[in-house]
Amino acid sequence: MSETAHTIQELIRRADAAIQEERFDDVVKFYTEDAVLVLSPGREAHGKAEIRRAFAAIAEYFNHSLKPSQGNMVFLEAGDTVLVLSQSFVDAPEKGDSAYPSERRATFVYRNIDGQWLCAVDNSYGTALLDI
Amino acid sequence: MSETAHTIQELIRRADAAIQEERFDDVVKFYTEDAVLVLSPGREAHGKAEIRRAFAAIAEYFNHSLKPSQGNMVFLEAGDTVLVLSQSFVDAPEKGDSAYPSERRATFVYRNIDGQWLCAVDNSYGTALLDI
Repeated sequence: MSETAHTIQELIRRADAAIQEERFDDVVKFYTEDAVLVLSPGREAHGKAEIRRAFAAIAEYFNHSLKPSQGNMVFLEAGDTVLVLSQSFVDAPEKGDSAYPSERRATFVYRNIDGQWLCAVDNSYGTALLDI
Repeated sequence: MSETAHTIQELIRRADAAIQEERFDDVVKFYTEDAVLVLSPGREAHGKAEIRRAFAAIAEYFNHSLKPSQGNMVFLEAGDTVLVLSQSFVDAPEKGDSAYPSERRATFVYRNIDGQWLCAVDNSYGTALLDI
């Protein structure tokens, strides 16, 4: 794994921890100013303010038991732009009737801006959005 | 569809036409300087020179009958960075024994650099790379 891939993998691990611990001010620090987060097919949050509100609503939906994590990952590196493919898991023991699948194939785009890697696109649905 | 999405869709259509017509000098103009093209799982071409050689080899492999096209597309826009999900078709009438699937769910990352949208990541395998 390249140094860039290692750096981004660690950032995603830290972002997942911040989401689980509901530290939303920390969560948005991982995103670019005009990042997009896919909430559900056709529903998107744009920018840090909307993304912050979305994660607060997601935490509520999962009864404050959301635990995201990543399995196998692939990093496609193009200079300051990296496409990450990831086997994403969502564990939520207090939300037995969740409409969300517990395993997905996610796609993230990371950008290096002023020496810092930030998430520009966070799409946990991956190419499944094409089916909906 | 947004103006950005429309612009990128048209660029992909023109890139597909250039690939089909084996205009490789035109093909590489659609990519960033340090773009990555996934050739097969674990095999990548980096930068315009490698990408040009890869498309020449691909044309040879398909007996000069390769016709790529796109079906349903989703555009996830984050300012100067766009993740494109696309139902991609590969038609190659002169290559009946191709090892390549004729329909895929592709992922492209486009970047706006100095006012021009260019492809930074071209991964026709989408999240299927996680399975291999």
